Amino acid sequence: MPLQRQKGAQMIILLKNNPDPVQLEDLTGWLRSLGLTVCPTVGVGQTILGLVGDTSRVDMDLIAALDIVEDVKRVQEPFKNVNRKFHPENTVVPVGQTGIGDGSLTLIAGPCAVENEEQLLTAAHAVKKAGAQILRAGAFRSRTSPYSFQGLKVEGMRLLLRAREETGLPVMTEILDASQLPLFKDVDLIEVGSGNIRNYHLLTALGRIKKPVLIRRGPAMTYEEWLMSAEYILAGGNSHVILCESGIRTFEQYTRNTFDIASIPVLKALTHLPVVADPCQGSGKYSLVPQLSRAACAAGADGLVIEVHPDPQHALCEGERQLLTGKFNALAGQLFSLHKIVQQGE
Amino acid sequence: MPLQRQKGAQMIILLKNNPDPVQLEDLTGWLRSLGLTVCPTVGVGQTILGLVGDTSRVDMDLIAALDIVEDVKRVQEPFKNVNRKFHPENTVVPVGQTGIGDGSLTLIAGPCAVENEEQLLTAAHAVKKAGAQILRAGAFRSRTSPYSFQGLKVEGMRLLLRAREETGLPVMTEILDASQLPLFKDVDLIEVGSGNIRNYHLLTALGRIKKPVLIRRGPAMTYEEWLMSAEYILAGGNSHVILCESGIRTFEQYTRNTFDIASIPVLKALTHLPVVADPCQGSGKYSLVPQLSRAACAAGADGLVIEVHPDPQHALCEGERQLLTGKFNALAGQLFSLHKIVQQGE
Amino acid sequence: MPLQRQKGAQMIILLKNNPDPVQLEDLTGWLRSLGLTVCPTVGVGQTILGLVGDTSRVDMDLIAALDIVEDVKRVQEPFKNVNRKFHPENTVVPVGQTGIGDGSLTLIAGPCAVENEEQLLTAAHAVKKAGAQILRAGAFRSRTSPYSFQGLKVEGMRLLLRAREETGLPVMTEILDASQLPLFKDVDLIEVGSGNIRNYHLLTALGRIKKPVLIRRGPAMTYEEWLMSAEYILAGGNSHVILCESGIRTFEQYTRNTFDIASIPVLKALTHLPVVADPCQGSGKYSLVPQLSRAACAAGADGLVIEVHPDPQHALCEGERQLLTGKFNALAGQLFSLHKIVQQGE
Amino acid sequence: MPLQRQKGAQMIILLKNNPDPVQLEDLTGWLRSLGLTVCPTVGVGQTILGLVGDTSRVDMDLIAALDIVEDVKRVQEPFKNVNRKFHPENTVVPVGQTGIGDGSLTLIAGPCAVENEEQLLTAAHAVKKAGAQILRAGAFRSRTSPYSFQGLKVEGMRLLLRAREETGLPVMTEILDASQLPLFKDVDLIEVGSGNIRNYHLLTALGRIKKPVLIRRGPAMTYEEWLMSAEYILAGGNSHVILCESGIRTFEQYTRNTFDIASIPVLKALTHLPVVADPCQGSGKYSLVPQLSRAACAAGADGLVIEVHPDPQHALCEGERQLLTGKFNALAGQLFSLHKIVQQGE
Repeated sequence: MPLQRQKGAQMIILLKNNPDPVQLEDLTGWLRSLGLTVCPTVGVGQTILGLVGDTSRVDMDLIAALDIVEDVKRVQEPFKNVNRKFHPENTVVPVGQTGIGDGSLTLIAGPCAVENEEQLLTAAHAVKKAGAQILRAGAFRSRTSPYSFQGLKVEGMRLLLRAREETGLPVMTEILDASQLPLFKDVDLIEVGSGNIRNYHLLTALGRIKKPVLIRRGPAMTYEEWLMSAEYILAGGNSHVILCESGIRTFEQYTRNTFDIASIPVLKALTHLPVVADPCQGSGKYSLVPQLSRAACAAGADGLVIEVHPDPQHALCEGERQLLTGKFNALAGQLFSLHKIVQQGE
Repeated sequence: MPLQRQKGAQMIILLKNNPDPVQLEDLTGWLRSLGLTVCPTVGVGQTILGLVGDTSRVDMDLIAALDIVEDVKRVQEPFKNVNRKFHPENTVVPVGQTGIGDGSLTLIAGPCAVENEEQLLTAAHAVKKAGAQILRAGAFRSRTSPYSFQGLKVEGMRLLLRAREETGLPVMTEILDASQLPLFKDVDLIEVGSGNIRNYHLLTALGRIKKPVLIRRGPAMTYEEWLMSAEYILAGGNSHVILCESGIRTFEQYTRNTFDIASIPVLKALTHLPVVADPCQGSGKYSLVPQLSRAACAAGADGLVIEVHPDPQHALCEGERQLLTGKFNALAGQLFSLHKIVQQGE
Repeated sequence: MPLQRQKGAQMIILLKNNPDPVQLEDLTGWLRSLGLTVCPTVGVGQTILGLVGDTSRVDMDLIAALDIVEDVKRVQEPFKNVNRKFHPENTVVPVGQTGIGDGSLTLIAGPCAVENEEQLLTAAHAVKKAGAQILRAGAFRSRTSPYSFQGLKVEGMRLLLRAREETGLPVMTEILDASQLPLFKDVDLIEVGSGNIRNYHLLTALGRIKKPVLIRRGPAMTYEEWLMSAEYILAGGNSHVILCESGIRTFEQYTRNTFDIASIPVLKALTHLPVVADPCQGSGKYSLVPQLSRAACAAGADGLVIEVHPDPQHALCEGERQLLTGKFNALAGQLFSLHKIVQQGE
Repeated sequence: MPLQRQKGAQMIILLKNNPDPVQLEDLTGWLRSLGLTVCPTVGVGQTILGLVGDTSRVDMDLIAALDIVEDVKRVQEPFKNVNRKFHPENTVVPVGQTGIGDGSLTLIAGPCAVENEEQLLTAAHAVKKAGAQILRAGAFRSRTSPYSFQGLKVEGMRLLLRAREETGLPVMTEILDASQLPLFKDVDLIEVGSGNIRNYHLLTALGRIKKPVLIRRGPAMTYEEWLMSAEYILAGGNSHVILCESGIRTFEQYTRNTFDIASIPVLKALTHLPVVADPCQGSGKYSLVPQLSRAACAAGADGLVIEVHPDPQHALCEGERQLLTGKFNALAGQLFSLHKIVQQGE
């Protein structure tokens, strides 16, 4: 096999039949002006340009829009810092005493929103007892409707830090805007919700701090786009990023989101960052949380984010409380057993 | 709370504001002519008609299209025979010595297509040894392109029955058209592919036979529509139907399909029929099969359909063979262990 | 620019870093045994194999599954007979006096289902008067539920041919199974519904007859897959195929389907076959039919399929009848005016 | 028909069979504490609670999660200020001399990004001459990759205002973060991109200013969620909001997005706000812009956002320049003719 020893192409441009020679000259000239080597193969049915060099700055859409271009395909992934190819070992993100991504199973649990001190402390003690390593609860809440409860805000932050003090659990809570960063200085793990995952202003700001960040997948985001959002943070200098599968939007509406279980092994292969999953937001159905949690664990997740709702005093309904003292405790135990089996099989 | 003691509504029609009285009279008269009781609630902002009776024959789209109608919502599921509400115990489908849905884990494995006797027998012996209870292989193949290999057809059927004879394993293979039924008289389990799942002519024909049928989910099919396809078979008198999650089509194109893991616990709750999953067709990536198989098992699947490709003599590439003697054997062992843990946790 | 004068590649295989030399040799040997020329470019970061020759029989999934392969990309479309590249002039499909695809606008209209003689004849006369060139109505109906009205079947076929006799309009109606073909010998245009568009047994049978066929898009079907279904019919020898955009399934559930307007100009560019659209099935909402019909016409459709429901005697509700005598007539007039403007702009 | 004269229900809760009476009492008590009237209908198979009152603050997900609840359905839309039911006349948004939504067709055109003064001024003069009423160009750019061109930023804003001065055209440009608002004080129309449409912090800030805002649809956003984003702005006191269909993400990847043409007539019916469309972002293909622009106009859009790329001096390729002097000019003329026909038909 006579091999051409040259550096492999990073991008391939497929030209239309019989491209205008002047336009082709313009295109190749422009590509070379970007510092790229252009390797053409011209044949009867198809001309292909292979581009060698740093193509991460090349605007594919611009090229695809040209009259003489049929298609543009990237050969190498557009992400670098998050790419496992260039960083084969797992990144371990330290949060409190826990190292997320170190091979253990991390449970991040707590109520959806901070409602009051009693509710939060009851939940915090319960999830700690069940084995959760990190407490989560929302102080600022991102809601589709301006008329929905937007969270206790600053007061919620205060209660959260109080719960940390009392239980010793590190805390995770969601940020909505870069201007809130000063308020998050004592938070252990900052969460970026699915509605803000394309808020590149916020991502850029998070790249400048030295604090772990958990980023949820947007409901219409491909693996690559999600990794590019992580790349924004790593490119800024902060490499402590955790990816959290939170469901995608599909035609199936029985569940609010479709929990994309394959994202866990795919991302573990593409990136060195830890990958966790939230079966509750990922499906929108409490009744599916046990089965989906087990599935995520069996698929190799580094951890799970699980909503646990206590409401001891003014319980809306008995069923909810069961999740806390009964269901979550039982589920956590089963998950740690399952994790052991999965680890042995690897 | 003053309750109105009457039979509950099965369907709800939301009318537009100030509906034309003549049209409203026409509509309610027509609904009553279908044997339904109409229970209206007329208010300032909204009039609602509750329909009591057998609404499974009511054409929702026809009603939704009326000028005076805002929306139509079904309160009860449109499926009956497959509904767990009316048949709470699990249906167990007997295939050879195995009872699919009886609490055990059934592995259905074998090559995608029958290629020749040696390939098929090698695969059959290997999957049997690894613990698979049913052999699968395609004789007639449904291909997107008319130029792709369409299977060995009748000769493939002959080889499949030969493999059954030699290994004692019952066999599953795919049917493409109702006219092929006579050829399938010795097949143990008939498979309906995702491209034929809305071929109601075929489903009706399968309802008239006494042989187990495995139906794959269509790539754009909701749980309800899938169950309605099963309903076609049960309504005809054949209750031995197995549902096989095979992935849905979404915007994410890294995997060919998105493996909808939530379908497993959702369907187990909605229907009494067994639910299995095919991680290979469900994702299109061999490298994800181990993780997705474990996940499906952890989510409560009654079984798995797994493609195992041997090719000892003229192996296209080494990697493939590993799946047979190495990977599938190891995976099967891990799945049976995992299944035991999950069963204990229930 | 030093060009390599050789026949262009039709398929590109991207290999993983440092592929095993034995496996690479196996792969290239196998590709050559298929009659393909293999043009490798091996570099530091990436090895690419370009395949020259007839790649339409190469199984991409099989190659993509190999251990040493990162990705496989097709450079040329997998469809041939339907490809505009090899057949630049529009195909005109003759149906009665009309030539679909000849630059005129064809309206195919009539009731969803044949209900009785009076209903059908009233509709037929009305759509003819409004300018429709083809009558459509369902005799055999493909329904999601086994309990829904399945059509008048053979009696419906008789009434349809009676309506053709009385109005002189050619007729279109849907086929559900290849075994029904003898019943369709007097039908002018055979319709394949979206549920049967991957029923390759039926498509193969339709390739052997000499009668125009209209194929609807499946709700999860890409342009390429849809064209491959057309390719099944053309490969069999029948080139009178019309493509009908009928909506795709997406997360948006306000409309039953999402009407993919872009499919019209895209398909007109990719294929020489006529492209029509059905705004009623494409959205599921009668109230959107006028706007979507205008849009499809403005986007360059060769025709429209529109449901027109008369019900003079036992009208379910007045609103429906308005569509026939009033709305459809007005809409048809507006569409012919619009079509003239669009044609002038081309 | 004995009608119950009471205020109609705004929300319906479907309970599971035989709900626990204590939990039911808890639920109804809690609903009443929110100021709602609860109208139950209890039957053999199903119990339904109708809720009368202001349900916009009720958390549906919370109720749906309860053990005794089967499903929750909203009868009335959750949006108020944007709802056409409560505000039947079209809102006209004044931008410069133009009133968007007044029945005329507004063209918003210009280059994707401000590159330099000459490029911007050439484009501005050209689009003005073709009949565009508003100039658009990006100064701050929202990019998926941190390595892509992020815009000229403050310098871009300066050039944009310079172009406004020279041509007299009002300008639209995109905001990325609430903290940038002071920079936008001279901008005529602020654009919110699809990546920020769930950035509720930004939307809340835009509700407090007195300046028109154009909000793009997110790629996974339903009509209702999109209208809720508009509701955030109107709820804050700013009613000058324009909705811009920009494509949704589906399985079809031939186009980058699927242009949801039905959104135009649907939104015109649901809301009084103006609705425009961007065929370029909505499909990602320049070659489809003419057909999709005509389609959007024929479907009733109040305007179009179209990217026009000049590059007279260092043209990347001839094809691009054609769009400016040739194609856009011709397209604009055809669109104004088409708009007249559509208006007459209404």
